[in-house]
Amino acid sequence: MKNLSSSKDAITKIEEQLIQLVLKRHKLVQELQTNDGISSESLFTRMVHLAKKKKDEQMIEAIEDLFKGLSDKKKEKTFLYSREHQKEDTIVMVNGERIGNGDPHLIMGPCAVESDQQVREVAAVLKQKGVKLLRGGAFKPRTSPYDFQGLGVEGLEILSRVAREHNMAVVTEIMSADQIEEAIPFVDVIQVGSRNMQNFSLLNELGRIDKPILLKRGLSATIEEFKLAAEYILSHGNKKVILCERGIRTYETATRNTLDISAVPILKQETHLPVIVDVTHSTGRKDLLAPAAKAALAIGADGIMAEVHPDPANALSDSKQQMNLNEFEEFYSEIQHFLKRNQYELTYA
Amino acid sequence: MKNLSSSKDAITKIEEQLIQLVLKRHKLVQELQTNDGISSESLFTRMVHLAKKKKDEQMIEAIEDLFKGLSDKKKEKTFLYSREHQKEDTIVMVNGERIGNGDPHLIMGPCAVESDQQVREVAAVLKQKGVKLLRGGAFKPRTSPYDFQGLGVEGLEILSRVAREHNMAVVTEIMSADQIEEAIPFVDVIQVGSRNMQNFSLLNELGRIDKPILLKRGLSATIEEFKLAAEYILSHGNKKVILCERGIRTYETATRNTLDISAVPILKQETHLPVIVDVTHSTGRKDLLAPAAKAALAIGADGIMAEVHPDPANALSDSKQQMNLNEFEEFYSEIQHFLKRNQYELTYA
Amino acid sequence: MKNLSSSKDAITKIEEQLIQLVLKRHKLVQELQTNDGISSESLFTRMVHLAKKKKDEQMIEAIEDLFKGLSDKKKEKTFLYSREHQKEDTIVMVNGERIGNGDPHLIMGPCAVESDQQVREVAAVLKQKGVKLLRGGAFKPRTSPYDFQGLGVEGLEILSRVAREHNMAVVTEIMSADQIEEAIPFVDVIQVGSRNMQNFSLLNELGRIDKPILLKRGLSATIEEFKLAAEYILSHGNKKVILCERGIRTYETATRNTLDISAVPILKQETHLPVIVDVTHSTGRKDLLAPAAKAALAIGADGIMAEVHPDPANALSDSKQQMNLNEFEEFYSEIQHFLKRNQYELTYA
Amino acid sequence: MKNLSSSKDAITKIEEQLIQLVLKRHKLVQELQTNDGISSESLFTRMVHLAKKKKDEQMIEAIEDLFKGLSDKKKEKTFLYSREHQKEDTIVMVNGERIGNGDPHLIMGPCAVESDQQVREVAAVLKQKGVKLLRGGAFKPRTSPYDFQGLGVEGLEILSRVAREHNMAVVTEIMSADQIEEAIPFVDVIQVGSRNMQNFSLLNELGRIDKPILLKRGLSATIEEFKLAAEYILSHGNKKVILCERGIRTYETATRNTLDISAVPILKQETHLPVIVDVTHSTGRKDLLAPAAKAALAIGADGIMAEVHPDPANALSDSKQQMNLNEFEEFYSEIQHFLKRNQYELTYA
Repeated sequence: MKNLSSSKDAITKIEEQLIQLVLKRHKLVQELQTNDGISSESLFTRMVHLAKKKKDEQMIEAIEDLFKGLSDKKKEKTFLYSREHQKEDTIVMVNGERIGNGDPHLIMGPCAVESDQQVREVAAVLKQKGVKLLRGGAFKPRTSPYDFQGLGVEGLEILSRVAREHNMAVVTEIMSADQIEEAIPFVDVIQVGSRNMQNFSLLNELGRIDKPILLKRGLSATIEEFKLAAEYILSHGNKKVILCERGIRTYETATRNTLDISAVPILKQETHLPVIVDVTHSTGRKDLLAPAAKAALAIGADGIMAEVHPDPANALSDSKQQMNLNEFEEFYSEIQHFLKRNQYELTYA
Repeated sequence: MKNLSSSKDAITKIEEQLIQLVLKRHKLVQELQTNDGISSESLFTRMVHLAKKKKDEQMIEAIEDLFKGLSDKKKEKTFLYSREHQKEDTIVMVNGERIGNGDPHLIMGPCAVESDQQVREVAAVLKQKGVKLLRGGAFKPRTSPYDFQGLGVEGLEILSRVAREHNMAVVTEIMSADQIEEAIPFVDVIQVGSRNMQNFSLLNELGRIDKPILLKRGLSATIEEFKLAAEYILSHGNKKVILCERGIRTYETATRNTLDISAVPILKQETHLPVIVDVTHSTGRKDLLAPAAKAALAIGADGIMAEVHPDPANALSDSKQQMNLNEFEEFYSEIQHFLKRNQYELTYA
Repeated sequence: MKNLSSSKDAITKIEEQLIQLVLKRHKLVQELQTNDGISSESLFTRMVHLAKKKKDEQMIEAIEDLFKGLSDKKKEKTFLYSREHQKEDTIVMVNGERIGNGDPHLIMGPCAVESDQQVREVAAVLKQKGVKLLRGGAFKPRTSPYDFQGLGVEGLEILSRVAREHNMAVVTEIMSADQIEEAIPFVDVIQVGSRNMQNFSLLNELGRIDKPILLKRGLSATIEEFKLAAEYILSHGNKKVILCERGIRTYETATRNTLDISAVPILKQETHLPVIVDVTHSTGRKDLLAPAAKAALAIGADGIMAEVHPDPANALSDSKQQMNLNEFEEFYSEIQHFLKRNQYELTYA
Repeated sequence: MKNLSSSKDAITKIEEQLIQLVLKRHKLVQELQTNDGISSESLFTRMVHLAKKKKDEQMIEAIEDLFKGLSDKKKEKTFLYSREHQKEDTIVMVNGERIGNGDPHLIMGPCAVESDQQVREVAAVLKQKGVKLLRGGAFKPRTSPYDFQGLGVEGLEILSRVAREHNMAVVTEIMSADQIEEAIPFVDVIQVGSRNMQNFSLLNELGRIDKPILLKRGLSATIEEFKLAAEYILSHGNKKVILCERGIRTYETATRNTLDISAVPILKQETHLPVIVDVTHSTGRKDLLAPAAKAALAIGADGIMAEVHPDPANALSDSKQQMNLNEFEEFYSEIQHFLKRNQYELTYA
């Protein structure tokens, strides 16, 4: 242990010297400020600057270690979701769509699967417009146990059958790990709902399979927590994660939730994953779907999710916020017009 | 269909008469207001009042049907959690403690189970004070997948062994339905954490077993959603549900969460279930544990949950908010003093 | 008082009759439902419908008075801000810019006026790009009394002088009614800051002058409260009100505030006033200014406000979120490019 | 300028040396960690520790200047509201009541002054119970310009007349600086409402007078912002500031606002000012007034504010949340009972 204690002594000696230098510098800076009024940058900022000029990685690291907080930046590099870990965008392939490739993608369909006919009616209209990703809920997380809970596996069968016939892919929610196995044959993208964003048992299991996962942001999750929820999936091996901003809970009641539009560019910067926006749940208002979709695309979203139902008034869930087929056509043409002006191409159109 | 349409005609005729009467009354009220300045109650309020005097249930119902919104009140009666369904308080028996009986109960222990010795040290001190409910996490839901995830079943074994030796009961969190079976032999109260408040698959399964459930309010759950989460458990057959307010997410950062103290009397009024307050997670500050506990007891909470660790500085989770053993003794004596002044008795003291 | 009490008796008698009729109708409806399963509209809805067919205003009013809450809808029509009151868009003329005419407008400049030279440097660059509205704070509302509080009237003089020389208009904040008179000669648009959105004394006085008012949404104001704050100004006679969404306070800390992008189309629908977006305060991050501005324009904002400073690092306030001149040029060209693609024209370009 | 640049060179030289030392220390620490696994404190922590041992204030300051953020702690000392500035509790004398002396005080009265008779009826009942502080609004900040705005100076006259006759003190809100002069003769405590917590013009003027100020927390103000709003008053010379927690805006709608009960002990710790709780506005529910008051007193509040009206149903504002006279008597006796059990004395009882 001799070495250890002599090293410790050496460290203490250096610290003593550091203090003297810091003090000396402090006095000089104070003199300058008195005479000259300049506002000096913090010592730390200047030290980092000097070190960066020297391009000495270890030196930068040493300075950053001055404060533990600063190692956050460094840690960031090790997260699998981060741009530091992977510079290029992750592209998730689904049914020929390359989600995350810079083109916008649409994921549309009813809130809940109610019948073969219902899904068929919607799918036919979507197909006609070139939409290739069909959403619909078979397992429905509902606030009350007495509300319609979804058709379960029968719903998956309907979705899958109709989607196959129309050459569309199925995006649907799974609520617990034990549903994964029965769902896999019917599903192309497994959705994790807001309420389950931190259902870590589910995330871990989804990390072990080879299916794209659409992970929705929790109702009051920070962006930080959202990224770390994705990390649960990524760290168990599944790299096909799509993030979905769907509004956060605030005091404002004019909309169902508050669409946190800034989350889109933040997630695009800090992760390499595709980011889509669910305009239905974030606004909860049919009159805001097209405006919100345009804002989302303008700010860089990789896709838009919205709900369409042949007869919203009689829907078994969310009847107020689903578009009917005519409303969908208007929505579609408004988005299409916006995209054309912006020289995007709907890849499937 | 003759009957049907004649009934419809009759209804329309009544509605015509109603309109004429409403109009006539309106004019009279207007005259009165001009002459006398009285502000009249709404017609609806008066009609309900009259009907109540007659004690005619169907008449009240008929009037309430004027507006659909009013049937909410009526629906309320059918929820199993509601005071309308059950007038008397539910008392959940755990290890001889009758939670919900009007006396305050303490649930204490470390955030996470880390070792036999750690739990043993805490339990010994708690036992000495008469605390009979030992909490500790074996499965830890953590924001990052790289943080300590708990000892799992080994943690349950430690908890159970130490608790049995000290004649204490075990309160511990389960994160998914598939952990229930392995946990049951070791656990006296199963905790559902905030992140899982709307993990409906888990709630459904917990509704099918015969163990007390401590259900924590979700991070940004409304009181309404909280009650309905409890309903998931109750409606599957398990009546032993304890509600736990543990702070909600707001903009304020001085505390970890914002303790929604008003939720306690609201839940006590609207449900018949015991309501406890987790002062550790709601405040996230050791200096606020005793004050928050006193406020919680003053407002009618059935118990207090807080974290105690023999060496918080080196704890594997939540190191800043856990009390050490001395701090616990101070906390305990402050609460004890408060309770005595209020002529409560800690049943176990 | 005889009349009064006989009127009261008459009213009670009518109410008795009403109850009997409501009850009779209720029973008929129940029979129908049992036999036929039809879902009946509420009595109220049907009564309103019948009254409307008769086009008898007083009758409608009488029925609506059944419940006080229902008069809300009716009141809405009378608000001066509402589309019901004025169908066509309000256009506020400032220095030749027609704000609200469908073209986007830029309001740019430093957070606080610090010196003649500082404002001059910024104005020269803005002018070059055709920006005609120069913002800058002379009275600064600061959280701490010890922070820089602005140059006051001297700041107004600087702003005004530089703006005149560059043929630009001045947009600046006034913090209390007693500053209006001294400010008027120097100012083209008076800004009401977030903290003052419900400073009703100030709003009332601003309603009595003939200057455009830029009203910022309060930090946690609902859209409803925001509209009613505008109504304070409008109802006192000043019709030149521009609304400004600038982010709301939520739990999310990745951005300074949460840009409530949906507020833009809602305000455009429900009011006839121009709506602009302050991208600086809503995001608090320079890297998000251009993306947020594009989203705001895509969703229908009439203009963008952002902060530009010649030397942000040494700014006396908000040093982190102001663009320097190079960053502004990049921001400008990105927005310009976006607008061209969308076939807008910057009217001044 | 020769001196200046040579000083700058000297500073840069020191910074170079610092970097080399920091780097050297970093390498030593890394070696130690590899061999020994010890978790080192941050360099910063150790440097501060060393400097403190030497009791050299300037040295500590120099080190803290390494990061600007660290000076926060130091600044705190200089705030006039802080315990560092003044250890002993501030006691604000009003009409013989010593607010802040450890005993609880009640401030009661109608939301708005409506008539002499109305105030008289309430005051008589309050007086009987020994309440000495009479609240009532003469200037009412209302969300809509069309709602009752208060009786203005006439209201002040009524309040003052009735209060004098009953030997009570008047607590009432002032909405702008220009109302101060006319209000002063009638008022004993000037209230600053939530919407005006950051109306700095008003705060500055209130700092220049010699009247107690009751400052309410803003609707979504952080505790930090609340303290700094108090600092505006204190720093202009008026030391008689009473803080009032009145609920914050959150997503929860079961209560009008969310009573942030933890703010009470935090404000008591971090400031020396009296802290009271407005139970009416924080809950907005009559059924929660007594429970919330007990919680507030248990957690250490210096007083309770609540609204009482002789005929709430016909009140011109807040009709749902005001107690009638009977409800007040029940409220009073519940609080009285609670206080007696806790060996407090209502000083006036």
